[in-house]
Amino acid sequence: MRENLTRKILRSHLDAGDLKPGNDATVSVDQILIEDATGTMTAMQFEMLDVDAIAVPLAVMYVDHNVLQIDDKNMQDHHYLRSFSARYGLRFSPPGNGISHYLHLERFARPGDLLIGADSHTSMAGAVGMFATGAGGLEVAVAMAGFGFEFACPAVVGVQLTGALEHAVEAKDVVLELLRRHDVRGGRGKVFEFFGEGVERLSTSARATICNMIVETGATTAVFPADEQTRRWLAEQNREADYRPMSADPGASYDHLEHIDLSELRPLVALPPSPGNVQPASELEDIELVQVCIGSSVNSSYDDLATVAAILKGRSVHPGVQLTVTPGSRQILQTIIASGVYEDLMQAGARMLEPVCGPCVGIGQAPLKGTASLRTFNRNFPGRSGTVEDKVYLCSPSTAAASALTGRITDPSNAGSQPLRAATPADPNAHDLHITSPLPETIRHDIEIERGSNLVPPPLPSPLPSRLDARVLITTGDDISTGDMAPDGAIAMSVWSNIAVCARFMFRRIDPDFHDRAKEWGGGVIIGGENYGQGSSREHAALIPLYLGIRVIAARSYARIHRRNLIAAGIVPLVLPNNAEPLIGDQWTIEGLYEAVANGEDSVTATINGVDRIDLGIQLSPNERSILAAGGLLAQVREGGRPLLTSAVTADLLEPIR
Amino acid sequence: MRENLTRKILRSHLDAGDLKPGNDATVSVDQILIEDATGTMTAMQFEMLDVDAIAVPLAVMYVDHNVLQIDDKNMQDHHYLRSFSARYGLRFSPPGNGISHYLHLERFARPGDLLIGADSHTSMAGAVGMFATGAGGLEVAVAMAGFGFEFACPAVVGVQLTGALEHAVEAKDVVLELLRRHDVRGGRGKVFEFFGEGVERLSTSARATICNMIVETGATTAVFPADEQTRRWLAEQNREADYRPMSADPGASYDHLEHIDLSELRPLVALPPSPGNVQPASELEDIELVQVCIGSSVNSSYDDLATVAAILKGRSVHPGVQLTVTPGSRQILQTIIASGVYEDLMQAGARMLEPVCGPCVGIGQAPLKGTASLRTFNRNFPGRSGTVEDKVYLCSPSTAAASALTGRITDPSNAGSQPLRAATPADPNAHDLHITSPLPETIRHDIEIERGSNLVPPPLPSPLPSRLDARVLITTGDDISTGDMAPDGAIAMSVWSNIAVCARFMFRRIDPDFHDRAKEWGGGVIIGGENYGQGSSREHAALIPLYLGIRVIAARSYARIHRRNLIAAGIVPLVLPNNAEPLIGDQWTIEGLYEAVANGEDSVTATINGVDRIDLGIQLSPNERSILAAGGLLAQVREGGRPLLTSAVTADLLEPIR
Repeated sequence: MRENLTRKILRSHLDAGDLKPGNDATVSVDQILIEDATGTMTAMQFEMLDVDAIAVPLAVMYVDHNVLQIDDKNMQDHHYLRSFSARYGLRFSPPGNGISHYLHLERFARPGDLLIGADSHTSMAGAVGMFATGAGGLEVAVAMAGFGFEFACPAVVGVQLTGALEHAVEAKDVVLELLRRHDVRGGRGKVFEFFGEGVERLSTSARATICNMIVETGATTAVFPADEQTRRWLAEQNREADYRPMSADPGASYDHLEHIDLSELRPLVALPPSPGNVQPASELEDIELVQVCIGSSVNSSYDDLATVAAILKGRSVHPGVQLTVTPGSRQILQTIIASGVYEDLMQAGARMLEPVCGPCVGIGQAPLKGTASLRTFNRNFPGRSGTVEDKVYLCSPSTAAASALTGRITDPSNAGSQPLRAATPADPNAHDLHITSPLPETIRHDIEIERGSNLVPPPLPSPLPSRLDARVLITTGDDISTGDMAPDGAIAMSVWSNIAVCARFMFRRIDPDFHDRAKEWGGGVIIGGENYGQGSSREHAALIPLYLGIRVIAARSYARIHRRNLIAAGIVPLVLPNNAEPLIGDQWTIEGLYEAVANGEDSVTATINGVDRIDLGIQLSPNERSILAAGGLLAQVREGGRPLLTSAVTADLLEPIR
Repeated sequence: MRENLTRKILRSHLDAGDLKPGNDATVSVDQILIEDATGTMTAMQFEMLDVDAIAVPLAVMYVDHNVLQIDDKNMQDHHYLRSFSARYGLRFSPPGNGISHYLHLERFARPGDLLIGADSHTSMAGAVGMFATGAGGLEVAVAMAGFGFEFACPAVVGVQLTGALEHAVEAKDVVLELLRRHDVRGGRGKVFEFFGEGVERLSTSARATICNMIVETGATTAVFPADEQTRRWLAEQNREADYRPMSADPGASYDHLEHIDLSELRPLVALPPSPGNVQPASELEDIELVQVCIGSSVNSSYDDLATVAAILKGRSVHPGVQLTVTPGSRQILQTIIASGVYEDLMQAGARMLEPVCGPCVGIGQAPLKGTASLRTFNRNFPGRSGTVEDKVYLCSPSTAAASALTGRITDPSNAGSQPLRAATPADPNAHDLHITSPLPETIRHDIEIERGSNLVPPPLPSPLPSRLDARVLITTGDDISTGDMAPDGAIAMSVWSNIAVCARFMFRRIDPDFHDRAKEWGGGVIIGGENYGQGSSREHAALIPLYLGIRVIAARSYARIHRRNLIAAGIVPLVLPNNAEPLIGDQWTIEGLYEAVANGEDSVTATINGVDRIDLGIQLSPNERSILAAGGLLAQVREGGRPLLTSAVTADLLEPIR
């Protein structure tokens, strides 16, 4: 069989299960990526696994989210994460080095490797021919401890790219086109693998943009081949030794196929409130802007910022617009300075921000309510910007730059621009001294972990009950994101290390009384629509319900990572039939819940207010049932219910940074 | 009489009153500086004056404080201030241009002029031979409307500088030496005027550092002569035409004299919790640091940052330390980039922040509780950093840089450094396009002012009562700052445009129940110690008590600006005798309060709990009594109780930016 690249990488890492789409597979893990926002829960749960050190070749803790520090709490997080990393053998990247996904691509991503990250956009590293995907913190902790990563094997969509992008059309428009086609649910259970002559002309950072934002379709990840572009990228990073060519076999088979003629694409924009709400920029030119934000974990590369500078150079941002620009890493920052891009941007009126996540997670630049903000980011879920009733539009750097000049959404095709400033990337090793190396075991054991009072270990589930009596707490619509459960923003994210405090923010935007009602009722049932829990991998969205005493969710369908996070937390993701319309306050009784889950039944019945009945689907893999029966993933692992991978190795802790 | 420079400038602007120290003087105003944090109250009160336009030659609104925007509120402020400025003829500097004091020094400060600013550090412009001082927002609004600025004429302290600063000793150490001598009260009622051969060698930015931080002694301001250094500074700013030599007459008389031999100074540090708590750096070398922050409205100049870079170049910040660097303006940012200073800092591991106030007002970089943070800022009042129980130390750029390398406070004398990188200042006019010019009257009248729901006009006082019955709400210690009344920080400052919400933060650090008690008791009396209300000019510290129904404060003594703000708000600053020890809950009855104030009596008697009696001093000038009798400054002006200055002119609105 002519094998596609995704299958090749997964097969080379397969430890248990099989690679039939939808079936459980357990793969060994080469690399782990963690960031500070999800990292404290990940680390506290890793500590509960009672292992002495990481059992993967590489794990890096990046501090890039909560780096504003409006009070003492996030500094407690940083001190904890730094000492945790030193104790257990992770590398640690302090604030200021850059955004995790850009740094990882620069310093660590390697063709053929398998990367799991406690961040949904971990997929970005697929740009260099690796399998990279996001997961909840506990699953990442379990993988980091050597137990591998278990997931439902995705189908592989082969995306053939032909032609070349026109002037002012960019990689961002490619992924927006995929979002236009698939919306925010169409990619679920799938990997998008790119092939064809159009691939060759896409730079590594262009590919990274596509791999990053592909998760907004619900996809598991995206994968590009490792080719000459990849070799050149790695050589620029002083890592040519990490290069190996990786591609699908010629004529490889795919589970699905689609085609994009790059030359036919035009600049696109995702309208609020969803990344899947895509229209041509040219049809939106009556939308006035008060803010344009460029750069985040997408579109912060040198190429992106040079493209913006080529449009802005010698001109001035529209006086009604505030423009911010965020470089992705210190290396990119240094390169834009050396090439003159920084100066072009500044002279045009841009506010140059630190290389951190910043406004992309609502930390700074919250826009004026009801006014349009145009951003090169990956998500525009309601409220994510920090402003209730925000109106965030997503686009490419070219579209953002052209629009910043006119003060309204503008198709950049005719905006005109000067030649890109050429640049040699700044010395990639120059900043490595700011990423700590792992310590020898003897020193590691002497490290005292700093635990501030803001750091509270997450709740642990009690065993799943046989009989559940609970009231419906809330009914939500389709495509509710985890950002509505554990919101972004400087204030809400300062308490992500303490689930009890976090819980006060759950669903606050859509139902401010949710928390108090859940406390008063001692738990309950959450009703979800389609694609419940899309977006970020933050497991807080599962740990908060657990803390509130919630043991079942009933939704029409689920997003991948959140569904796994619920199971890991010991919460059953039941499937709500289309004809059921539960109401807040309904009293549900489910008899035999534990038994139905543990014994492989495909449904369970809820009695509503002692009268009506709803049959709820149980769509769980055998191991997912085993996790729930054990009382969550942590309990399963601690009770020996999950084997240590034969391939798990003690990390090469003293190896210098590659 | 051989006249000192301060007296010359004041005399040339005197409109009413006289220049005998302590007497009321009203001066005409050439320039107004406003920033966004205090600016919304200033602007809303200006609107209540019912004038058509500013009546001073120049007024500039800078947005530099609340530029983080964690939610929608500060963006409402910005839109209001932008449209207000356009409507009334102010220039407007949006976020990103820089910190008001640096920008004003670069673009507008002019020898011989008189500048009033709604920010206590407005004094910084004294560096170029002008009289520049901070005031509350209402007093600034009244001055901007053409009614001049009234204040108690300060005594002039002549500070003779001889010798030259040794290696690694800086202007910051000069002002720290003055704080060592005078602490935070010794400068009250005084202007520090510098003369002598030691002055010549101090650059304009060095002088600016001294003039900025001099207010921590309680001083009204500081003044340097305008000399060859000044001419060179203005020429670098393309403003040589603004130069005129200004100095004291030879052998001029001063009210007080003191002497500093610059060559004898050593690096100094102000320990928490007060800028007046000064010790030699060499005696503090056992203090471990987790954070070093360089740059704010002091020590953000090119020279400052080049000095830091010369020490850090080719070295790496101590791994236990987070280092941030803030340039003062876009011009400085551009200059450090062109000269290589930026790269040196970044390579050493510094986080490079935007040219905004940031951590100096607790917006970002709140340090870990109980750990030491070393900063080149001007204030270390408790909690100002954003962290309760913070420990902030203040020092020079050299001391900060040497300490960032070692991870503990370090005398920089022996730290070693490389030669300063030379630089030509970046084109000073390059960024002027980002500061709006005033509009023609016909266009101004069509401007619609944008008023978001976060903008609520301040309360207006009712007439001062004849009989006051009130309970003691709180008793505070000495040197309580206005930051304890209207706290700094991203969260607290997002509500500075709404006094009722602001009020919830008053005294929260020292007594979390204060607000609720004040509401429950319907007002009351606040008991203060010495130097009550030191620090920032924020009039919120007076408007909140007014909102809470408080009409008298009884303190041992007052800081200058806060005392005036209380009077402007219609609150009587009574003087508490040394032997009185009021208790919370005491019931005070004051008969004849209005009459005592209005009729020039020098004390009034409070009956305590119907039994004891305290005689409270009334130390008010005739016009201050008139303001209080009228029910506050706004009422006085609106009722015609304050004459429009004969020298007030319609602003030269269409003149290009100088």
